Amino acid sequence: MEIYLDNSATTRPYDDVIDIMMKVYREDYGNPSSKHYKGVDSEKYVKEAREIIAKSLKASSREILFTSGGTESDNTALIGCAMAGKRRGNHIITTKIEHPAILETTEYLKKQGFDITYLNVDKQGVVDLEQLKNSLTHETIIVSVMHTNNEIGSVQPLEEIGKIIKAFDKDILFHVDAVQGYGKFNIVPKKANIDLMSVSGHKIHGPKGIGFLYIKEGTKILPYIMGGGQQGGMRSGTENVPAIAGMAQAVKNIYENLEEDRQRMYELRDQVIDGVSSIEGVQINGMPERQGAPHIISISVKNVRAEVLLHSLEEKNIYVSSGSACASNKNTVSDTLRAIGLDKEYLDSTIRVSLSVFNTKEDIEALVSALKDIIPELRKYTRR
Amino acid sequence: MEIYLDNSATTRPYDDVIDIMMKVYREDYGNPSSKHYKGVDSEKYVKEAREIIAKSLKASSREILFTSGGTESDNTALIGCAMAGKRRGNHIITTKIEHPAILETTEYLKKQGFDITYLNVDKQGVVDLEQLKNSLTHETIIVSVMHTNNEIGSVQPLEEIGKIIKAFDKDILFHVDAVQGYGKFNIVPKKANIDLMSVSGHKIHGPKGIGFLYIKEGTKILPYIMGGGQQGGMRSGTENVPAIAGMAQAVKNIYENLEEDRQRMYELRDQVIDGVSSIEGVQINGMPERQGAPHIISISVKNVRAEVLLHSLEEKNIYVSSGSACASNKNTVSDTLRAIGLDKEYLDSTIRVSLSVFNTKEDIEALVSALKDIIPELRKYTRR
Repeated sequence: MEIYLDNSATTRPYDDVIDIMMKVYREDYGNPSSKHYKGVDSEKYVKEAREIIAKSLKASSREILFTSGGTESDNTALIGCAMAGKRRGNHIITTKIEHPAILETTEYLKKQGFDITYLNVDKQGVVDLEQLKNSLTHETIIVSVMHTNNEIGSVQPLEEIGKIIKAFDKDILFHVDAVQGYGKFNIVPKKANIDLMSVSGHKIHGPKGIGFLYIKEGTKILPYIMGGGQQGGMRSGTENVPAIAGMAQAVKNIYENLEEDRQRMYELRDQVIDGVSSIEGVQINGMPERQGAPHIISISVKNVRAEVLLHSLEEKNIYVSSGSACASNKNTVSDTLRAIGLDKEYLDSTIRVSLSVFNTKEDIEALVSALKDIIPELRKYTRR
Repeated sequence: MEIYLDNSATTRPYDDVIDIMMKVYREDYGNPSSKHYKGVDSEKYVKEAREIIAKSLKASSREILFTSGGTESDNTALIGCAMAGKRRGNHIITTKIEHPAILETTEYLKKQGFDITYLNVDKQGVVDLEQLKNSLTHETIIVSVMHTNNEIGSVQPLEEIGKIIKAFDKDILFHVDAVQGYGKFNIVPKKANIDLMSVSGHKIHGPKGIGFLYIKEGTKILPYIMGGGQQGGMRSGTENVPAIAGMAQAVKNIYENLEEDRQRMYELRDQVIDGVSSIEGVQINGMPERQGAPHIISISVKNVRAEVLLHSLEEKNIYVSSGSACASNKNTVSDTLRAIGLDKEYLDSTIRVSLSVFNTKEDIEALVSALKDIIPELRKYTRR
């Protein structure tokens, strides 16, 4: 049996997501820009998907832009708004615990002459609101804050942040990277004063290579991928119809029983935390109880290297991650773990367990039992 | 029966392309950046795909960058090289008949201060080589010329163009948009001095939402999509593994019997041309005989509006395109048709028939017979 607990890296698609994609590939493979029936049939999927997704956000379908994934959504939001807002000023605010799709993009914009403020977070990974207030200027174009942190599952007070931004100046844009939050929370952008929001398909049991960017109507933004003028000129390139239809199916499924699924995941999360708390030298990072996300558990294990622990679990067919898979190619120490002030000895000793609707109590029992076996064993070999 | 003759807009994927994608989605859904087996298994598909594609170009697998499609490949090539080559100069050369993914990007770069030269083409859609020679300067960063035109199927003398560029200055980069040429021709970038080449998956019976950019080793280029550092930092975002595997399968299939398939398509093309030539007031655009691409036939029909003709054919389940589907959202007159100096009365009266390996003689018989019926009928209603 395979116990997949790396759902924040990517998820297994729902079966009906795969089914709809196959149908589109086999039968309705037309190009939505084509003027004949095959194009029209294909365009219908895109239109319907836009409506399904918009509904999940209580937004208008005109506010949904399809992209190739969360990374492109983030790049488009930041660069598209920075370029469109140049006249206004050259200041951008974000946080120290964003995903690299944000942090690498702000570093790029810095080289282009923009001023970037990186907000601190507290020990639980929550943004410093006082610092936000003090950082806002009338030169600020956009503030980008993630919904749920991908490494420790901390959830930001987005409504408060939105209020602070708009109270200062309603023309400052508010972008949210909701790649880890969408599908786990009910998010209504307009309620939180969110102007732009990034989402990825493959984190919610949808296909890879697809995502969307919510863009509130009237937002000043320039396109990032240019060409044939698809999607009203905001994102050129033939629409990835099968993946768009697949992502919409995933959205339908995941928002159908959201509250129930969330509760079940929170219970599994409790089960993990209860189970490992009795192991000596183990600490849980992030926000306690029901304040954090239901699906991410960051576990630091004193004197055990995360990668060694990951591979020991893998031998038992249990799959977790060390740090964030998205940034793992770089083998650098996690920005997030450093930003929450994690003790040095834990920086390299932290694994992430990430859940999905597919996980069961039995999965967690197996994980906890494996950790109880493996950790003392590995410590025997630790250099002191 | 459905007669799909709009294969330059998009193609139906091969069955085994769909099969491999579904296998990856169902079983090997891991994130290639994950360090456990599920990540490693997933990474294998990416590695193998890179090798298959590289082989088709007699290139190294390190020279293949996966993108979300032809449009992103074109954007990345032009903007990535322009930004990396800023110190060298600010001049870019392209042609008047490029796809909008090039033309919109060069217009964007123009706004950023770059100088753009748009080369003329002759009546057959072939680039003016003398003008190219006279346009090259030591300020020129990149020359971008398409392989096969998407509307009229003209094929550019790329080897000659490569020689001209590199004889003038070997540091000037040569980019080729091969979205319509790859899979129909054997293209060896190094033989033609090509430094970068864009390809799209869904034009070769592969999946939508995937493509690649060939980048010769050592080419000065900056990434366009930034984030987690995937693909050596050149294109961030979780790799679209199922689509990558699917595209590689399509490449395998299409290059297996390339010469035979090309000949068969040329014969079908001849069959179209022979069939419609007897209709009064019909002219074929592009290059004659075996000089043009095997799969694109541009047909101008005097006194018949292309869109009306398209819809009449559609009623008989025959699908063709008016102008280029990729740009059809804009309803503007085709740049290509204007650039080849097409008579005004034909500009709005031109359809494109585009073939694939799936088409048969019977398809063409049905098309020709339909055109012979429809055209005289439609002319009855034409305002003079």
